[in-house]
Amino acid sequence: METVEIKKWIRDIPDFPEKGVIFRDITPLLKNPEVFKYSLNKIVELIKDWDFDCIVSPESRGFIFATPLAYIMDKEFVPIRKPGKLPYKTYSISYELEYGQTSLEMHADAIEKGEKVIVVDDVLATGGTTKAIKELIERAGGETVGVVCLAELTYLNPRENLKDLEIASLIRY
Amino acid sequence: METVEIKKWIRDIPDFPEKGVIFRDITPLLKNPEVFKYSLNKIVELIKDWDFDCIVSPESRGFIFATPLAYIMDKEFVPIRKPGKLPYKTYSISYELEYGQTSLEMHADAIEKGEKVIVVDDVLATGGTTKAIKELIERAGGETVGVVCLAELTYLNPRENLKDLEIASLIRY
Repeated sequence: METVEIKKWIRDIPDFPEKGVIFRDITPLLKNPEVFKYSLNKIVELIKDWDFDCIVSPESRGFIFATPLAYIMDKEFVPIRKPGKLPYKTYSISYELEYGQTSLEMHADAIEKGEKVIVVDDVLATGGTTKAIKELIERAGGETVGVVCLAELTYLNPRENLKDLEIASLIRY
Repeated sequence: METVEIKKWIRDIPDFPEKGVIFRDITPLLKNPEVFKYSLNKIVELIKDWDFDCIVSPESRGFIFATPLAYIMDKEFVPIRKPGKLPYKTYSISYELEYGQTSLEMHADAIEKGEKVIVVDDVLATGGTTKAIKELIERAGGETVGVVCLAELTYLNPRENLKDLEIASLIRY
């Protein structure tokens, strides 16, 4: 497949989930197998030289990209979930979102000491979620190498929050 | 890779999320790239003769298997989400779970009339979630061909709930 204009397959929804926010709806992209496959293969290209063993990703939309990448690249997958969803011992963190506050959990045995880890998400907004996940990874003794996403919202300045990480995004708004 | 004993990579957590329930924790499987890849490839084998264009799956754990399958099999992916998460017009349904009640939503434009669809989930328990998703698919004018999962909890009799569907599971408890 030749170059695809990925943004054509992302629908802007104004004032969702609240007034003043433009939500980037990726469901049209996911509904087109060629475009979804193209996007995943392009993300693989972006990070193919990164040195890591493990992909960590927050539910739910992060999983959409994280597990195909784990499959393609032969990497481990570790899910980050909302409180009360993971059944074993967890590390937990609370943090500020673009809108409101939230908490995330990771299994305490999910990452080995010294393991190199990347974060995968669909959209990189303020960088707050990645920063929180980085702290969970560090509590487990892992090292966060970088974060890769489909879409980076540059107007929310995520790179300000993530100065010590590699950052890769397939498209930027 | 030779035959893998998949159940060895699933951890039983008793009394989660509530007393009397054994939770099948797939995070050890997801943490092993060989076993995860093996499981996905085996699921592809189970359904390779099914006639469908679209994979529908409920958040969050369903996504873990659904999007790699969409990638491998060149199929469309449609996410089913909890209320208030999908930004466009939706169909919504409430139903009874193994423990408690819940609601799910699907974008109203997610499926074309007459489109053949399968449901992917990690665990098939009572079949209630699949039955609810089948109704959402039908409201959109689609046809549900079958459901495929990693693990089927036969002691909850999901097949009683899903008599008109193809059902495939990689392992059974």
